[in-house]
Amino acid sequence: MKNQLVKCFENVKIKSPLVHNITNYVTVNDCANITIAIGASPIMADAIEEIIEIQTISSGLNINIGTLNSRTVASMLLSAKRANELNHPVMLDAVGAGASSFRDDTLKTFLDIAHFSCIKGNISEIKALSNKNIASKGVDANILDKVNEENIDDVIQSTRILVKETKSIVIITGEIDLIVSDTKAWVVRNGCSMMSNITGSGCMLSSLVASFISANTDNIFDAAAAAVITMGIAGEKANEKMIKTESGNSSYRNYLIDEIFKFKATDLEIRGKYELR
Amino acid sequence: MKNQLVKCFENVKIKSPLVHNITNYVTVNDCANITIAIGASPIMADAIEEIIEIQTISSGLNINIGTLNSRTVASMLLSAKRANELNHPVMLDAVGAGASSFRDDTLKTFLDIAHFSCIKGNISEIKALSNKNIASKGVDANILDKVNEENIDDVIQSTRILVKETKSIVIITGEIDLIVSDTKAWVVRNGCSMMSNITGSGCMLSSLVASFISANTDNIFDAAAAAVITMGIAGEKANEKMIKTESGNSSYRNYLIDEIFKFKATDLEIRGKYELR
Amino acid sequence: MKNQLVKCFENVKIKSPLVHNITNYVTVNDCANITIAIGASPIMADAIEEIIEIQTISSGLNINIGTLNSRTVASMLLSAKRANELNHPVMLDAVGAGASSFRDDTLKTFLDIAHFSCIKGNISEIKALSNKNIASKGVDANILDKVNEENIDDVIQSTRILVKETKSIVIITGEIDLIVSDTKAWVVRNGCSMMSNITGSGCMLSSLVASFISANTDNIFDAAAAAVITMGIAGEKANEKMIKTESGNSSYRNYLIDEIFKFKATDLEIRGKYELR
Repeated sequence: MKNQLVKCFENVKIKSPLVHNITNYVTVNDCANITIAIGASPIMADAIEEIIEIQTISSGLNINIGTLNSRTVASMLLSAKRANELNHPVMLDAVGAGASSFRDDTLKTFLDIAHFSCIKGNISEIKALSNKNIASKGVDANILDKVNEENIDDVIQSTRILVKETKSIVIITGEIDLIVSDTKAWVVRNGCSMMSNITGSGCMLSSLVASFISANTDNIFDAAAAAVITMGIAGEKANEKMIKTESGNSSYRNYLIDEIFKFKATDLEIRGKYELR
Repeated sequence: MKNQLVKCFENVKIKSPLVHNITNYVTVNDCANITIAIGASPIMADAIEEIIEIQTISSGLNINIGTLNSRTVASMLLSAKRANELNHPVMLDAVGAGASSFRDDTLKTFLDIAHFSCIKGNISEIKALSNKNIASKGVDANILDKVNEENIDDVIQSTRILVKETKSIVIITGEIDLIVSDTKAWVVRNGCSMMSNITGSGCMLSSLVASFISANTDNIFDAAAAAVITMGIAGEKANEKMIKTESGNSSYRNYLIDEIFKFKATDLEIRGKYELR
Repeated sequence: MKNQLVKCFENVKIKSPLVHNITNYVTVNDCANITIAIGASPIMADAIEEIIEIQTISSGLNINIGTLNSRTVASMLLSAKRANELNHPVMLDAVGAGASSFRDDTLKTFLDIAHFSCIKGNISEIKALSNKNIASKGVDANILDKVNEENIDDVIQSTRILVKETKSIVIITGEIDLIVSDTKAWVVRNGCSMMSNITGSGCMLSSLVASFISANTDNIFDAAAAAVITMGIAGEKANEKMIKTESGNSSYRNYLIDEIFKFKATDLEIRGKYELR
């Protein structure tokens, strides 16, 4: 099992896929740098006039609706459709699902018209996607909704409804991360609380997942898990460096990307905390 | 007096307000990270379709016109009106006031239609807001206009015209910072020249002020001052670290946010240099 | 010769030109910070309503089409025309030329309607500009097209066609950088491979070139070379620091800007590796 995850990691380095990202203007620079750090190549373009050509020369797509607007939504949709035509893996980060009707309507349209290899959100966002009745406090998970050791299997079961409807791998991030397919689920216990003390750790993870799945089109499920574990371990290492250097959250952001840059396949084996259910 | 400022600082940590920022794409990442560093929670959204809902779930608003355009100006205006309806504190950073008619006309419309708890600018920008005849060299203060020990009281007096017209607290940043209400004024002597060797120290301050006033709706005047002093002290500490590490302005930017992250209430008491006039 | 380059460097510090940048939202923050680091002053504005006034108060213009869209293309064009009227030097970074018809058509319009003091790209982008038949893998140079010791003179010769057509200095970046005029060419061997392990080293270089040429309007050719050499040396120094600190690409990005901030004229003389052909 470990070998499969390591293989997914190594494929990113070997294939260095060009990944098209249409993401938000808050964390876009971090998304580009983490994509390079892992060994893939980022391209950020969102003009409707060029989106089909840009998608065509890419190997995958990452859509993040963090600061969506009507212009970029149209480009996201067209890119996703083009990626589907070309069998490029597509990652959807459902940032702020449940926070506005515009987000919910946009996500509904996306899911109606295109296929996404992976859909990622915190538990609130994933619930909002499955069920329009959940309130959201911005882009952070509602604290009442946390995945914990007791409710893991229940959450996996209820997530399967969305998995089956969308034919996507669903990634739920939090203290415990879940990567859910229709028959299996990875449970990941890496990462640390510092990751929520910067903006963009979630966005960076989507770019990372997009890089992994673009290099592992035949194994989206394990590739997504490998990305989540890699991010979690890098987050822990960056935290150790932050404590050692007595710095703060801005340095932490740099250390996190640095750790992805320095990441070795063996780190997955030595520090990975995960199980398959 | 110190206790009041400390209380404002502590309220940010205790209440952790969700602050809606519509800001520029140059420094938006730093604005988000400094908002988290101080203990508040940032949300960046600017699509007209969702702006009312996003403002509704937030506790405050920060508007920064650094890279305004017709699309975002409409969203800023609608957010400000919604924030006013909900009694959310609203911060206005008048970046580049006086540099173009578009900025001046936009600011005029903002001030006509909405109420801002605080308006911030350097002396040139505040003069441009009060008086349309002042030339501006980009977004930096015209050097001839500097606040100095001799003209402090004059500047405070002439600023009161804008304070009274807008019913806002007016913040003038520079070597000496002024926080002016209709009857009182804080004079702050923290900060250092390195702060102008990065882009965004002014923008980060607006996000910080927005965080402070969102957590202290009953004391906007002191909350704004506490934010300005906190930023100034963090700027000094970051400078000490930059000198020690023999680094440069990019590392300085990280250290500045780090120092906000590590900031303690006692720092305000130990290092604060301010007086009430 | 060295003295001429040093003089170009020193003029940036002395004149501190206000440089208008219309660039992409991925690396805009780095572009602003590196502009400050070198001693110039950045202004980022892209609203069509204000672009003429903003250009008028500036001393130069940097256009980077990294994330172009129809709104910003119109502003770029208007700014370039205004800059031409005012004899402000204009830098064009042809990011992703050849990657889409939209980029190629936009660049063609730019070159038809405005004059650019300098045009920069990697070899693929410059080939695409000269010849519409070259495929591009995103924004990185096609590996087959590399400038090497054997083909330098050939590349210079074929670049002269574009130089003459556009009356621009053409800058080709890569392991070996070329700065080509109609009669002369600088060949620069500074820099290191780490520079391509971050997003934005090319964009930062355009902002740097724009700063140098805005402060040296009477010597665009040497000013452009001085900027390229400065960037290359800073890239090497940052690499030494990254190795020493065992960090990664995100820290490298900071170190790179830091090294520009700390750069001394003597660094050009001591570490510069260049020749005039």
